[in-house]
Amino acid sequence: MDHDDWVRQELRGLSKSLGFRYTPINEIENRLKKIRAEMKKQEVETLLVIQKMNLYYLTGTTQEGLLFIPGDGKPLLMIKRELERAKVESPMKEIIALRSIREIPSLIQSHIGKLRNRLGLELDVLPVKDYFKFQELFPGTQLMDVSSILREIRKIKSPFEIDLMRRAGEIGRKVYQEAKKILKKGMTEIEFGGLLEAMAKKYGHEGLLRVRSLNYEAYTWHVLSGITGGIVSQSDSPMGGLGLSPAFPVGASLKIMKAHEPILVDFGTCYHGYQADETRMFSIGKMKQKFIDSYNACKEIHDAVLEETKPGADCETIFLKTLRLAEKLGYKDSYLGPRGLQTRFISHGIGLELNELPFIAQGQSYPLEKGMTFAVEPKIVFPGEGSVGIENTVVVTKNGYEILTPVEQEIFQV
Amino acid sequence: MDHDDWVRQELRGLSKSLGFRYTPINEIENRLKKIRAEMKKQEVETLLVIQKMNLYYLTGTTQEGLLFIPGDGKPLLMIKRELERAKVESPMKEIIALRSIREIPSLIQSHIGKLRNRLGLELDVLPVKDYFKFQELFPGTQLMDVSSILREIRKIKSPFEIDLMRRAGEIGRKVYQEAKKILKKGMTEIEFGGLLEAMAKKYGHEGLLRVRSLNYEAYTWHVLSGITGGIVSQSDSPMGGLGLSPAFPVGASLKIMKAHEPILVDFGTCYHGYQADETRMFSIGKMKQKFIDSYNACKEIHDAVLEETKPGADCETIFLKTLRLAEKLGYKDSYLGPRGLQTRFISHGIGLELNELPFIAQGQSYPLEKGMTFAVEPKIVFPGEGSVGIENTVVVTKNGYEILTPVEQEIFQV
Repeated sequence: MDHDDWVRQELRGLSKSLGFRYTPINEIENRLKKIRAEMKKQEVETLLVIQKMNLYYLTGTTQEGLLFIPGDGKPLLMIKRELERAKVESPMKEIIALRSIREIPSLIQSHIGKLRNRLGLELDVLPVKDYFKFQELFPGTQLMDVSSILREIRKIKSPFEIDLMRRAGEIGRKVYQEAKKILKKGMTEIEFGGLLEAMAKKYGHEGLLRVRSLNYEAYTWHVLSGITGGIVSQSDSPMGGLGLSPAFPVGASLKIMKAHEPILVDFGTCYHGYQADETRMFSIGKMKQKFIDSYNACKEIHDAVLEETKPGADCETIFLKTLRLAEKLGYKDSYLGPRGLQTRFISHGIGLELNELPFIAQGQSYPLEKGMTFAVEPKIVFPGEGSVGIENTVVVTKNGYEILTPVEQEIFQV
Repeated sequence: MDHDDWVRQELRGLSKSLGFRYTPINEIENRLKKIRAEMKKQEVETLLVIQKMNLYYLTGTTQEGLLFIPGDGKPLLMIKRELERAKVESPMKEIIALRSIREIPSLIQSHIGKLRNRLGLELDVLPVKDYFKFQELFPGTQLMDVSSILREIRKIKSPFEIDLMRRAGEIGRKVYQEAKKILKKGMTEIEFGGLLEAMAKKYGHEGLLRVRSLNYEAYTWHVLSGITGGIVSQSDSPMGGLGLSPAFPVGASLKIMKAHEPILVDFGTCYHGYQADETRMFSIGKMKQKFIDSYNACKEIHDAVLEETKPGADCETIFLKTLRLAEKLGYKDSYLGPRGLQTRFISHGIGLELNELPFIAQGQSYPLEKGMTFAVEPKIVFPGEGSVGIENTVVVTKNGYEILTPVEQEIFQV
């Protein structure tokens, strides 16, 4: 049988029967409307979208290709592999084959008549060698950075997107509920983490988490027990853990989890590209009182952030309040990391990537808006001993917030 | 306790007791020698290494930072986070704190006296916005692309590196052996894939696989059964599978695996950053004869590649031979993908990344060399029906090759 015939006839039915939700046309149209408004404001005449998550956001497909958006007229999706599949996955009308990057200028020219003077590219992630190629392909054109435009339009989530995040949170809820049955004395951190992940996948978690960065790699097996919870590593996180080797010195290790230690499980899930992030504490037997107390402090800080969460609240102001509260509670030198290595954020925006807007953090003075989604994660770290924390993913609503990770908040003691 | 004091006193002991192997100083020195020889050849006076795997290769640590290499004199490792940990992980002597990217020129100046005229950067992956920042920081300096140098020096693996790959292969062997006990009728592809991954992690697999690319994302849960094995997707692979959503339309899906279907398991493992890649076939009950025959053809092609594998053999010539063999065996239109979508490689180099040199592929005419490592993966695809394949990771030895993934090659039938 011919592959493309099969895709045209069977792919939609098969994938829908297996739980695929394709992005509806009105979603895509609304997103295009938003980007065009920003393009107009910043005088970007035309734009090429290359990065996978931006492409998914604006087309509904992640098949390999590029999206051309003129300031007016129809966008053009050029697909290298696999064209017929992209046509099923994206509700867009103008989807054509791209055999080579060299064809792009002529394909654009046939599409809109003539090349424009200004072309926007995602310079926050585009490799330099590709940029040079575009300079060669568009010799008379001014190449502009449009990464802030794309970042900006993605920060407010639609009800469709929020629903996908709710589904990701639902997967997480099932995982935490079953985790209690799995955790056993004598297990290593990585064994526990691996089993949680396998469970999440069974429920539809896509396995990977995404961060917009050259070197930062996200992962789900962030299980730290006792001493490993007190170790900082490469990432901008209060604690990195030990990991399995210097090649990936973060997350779960081969350390055996012991009784009474704080076991921190920071677990992210991904459903249709949309992520939910949450942290809960586990222990085998009762956790030492010091950690119970500091976990309660984390909960208090977490609740204080949520109390402030509504449209108009200033992100930096909320962050600074948590610093004062942590100090008042006696955790000045352990809040958000060990002394000298403390991070400067309590929340990161979340959606298709883990480092979206908004950040509730130092230097981030802007208001929360309805439809923003972020993870709130107060953590307290004691080097040589362990760490505790809680984390939930929330969406800002008209008057407050909704938690997208509805997992019980007490310590999971087995 | 102070975090950095703890790291200085305890980290080495703890991590070694949990299986960490740090890169020895002589490894680092040999690699630096290789890069300096290339720098001299290409007239690169100084070089800054930024990308995580290159940094690991040249320093032994992946803590966040940059490595400066002058053509002569000592290299300088500048670490943002976490400095004390980098000092434990890397055997290098000159490791200093980097508070901000802006400090780099002055740190280099204090290290080597004055800035040189030419500075090499990894332009194959460096984002444009960072490049602009370096242009600003080094106004009188010519920025050059050194990605080919780094690619070149990494292509020949040392005995130390090969041993780490052997260990990765050993993890894979255990996983395949136990997989037969796990596979059950009624299981979904993703459930099976998730359990294999959990098992691999328990044995020390680091969870992630790495590819040097902006948009290509590697993953280990490539379990395709029957019909999903016949589907091509975004990746340059004979078959992509269905996946869980249009956001990640590759790999295992929620499809239930049925009796007599070919179940293809392409599973990669990662140990201390070094990867091994392998594929085996499974079935519940006897696989249909058509797939048994085509699997045998894959084995024949696989063996033919290995027969040619020795120093001096030309990569493209080997690839073209496999095309002729596949045609002779009756698989002209299904070898390496469905007609019209066939890929043009039978092997990819492998090490810290899945797309290293050498490629046994069309247009890749260069000789194999002792110490090169690659994955050989003949696959045969029938759209609407399924696919089969075998894959092993090998190292080129003085007179031939050694298989690093010693798993039995018959079909795993349960």
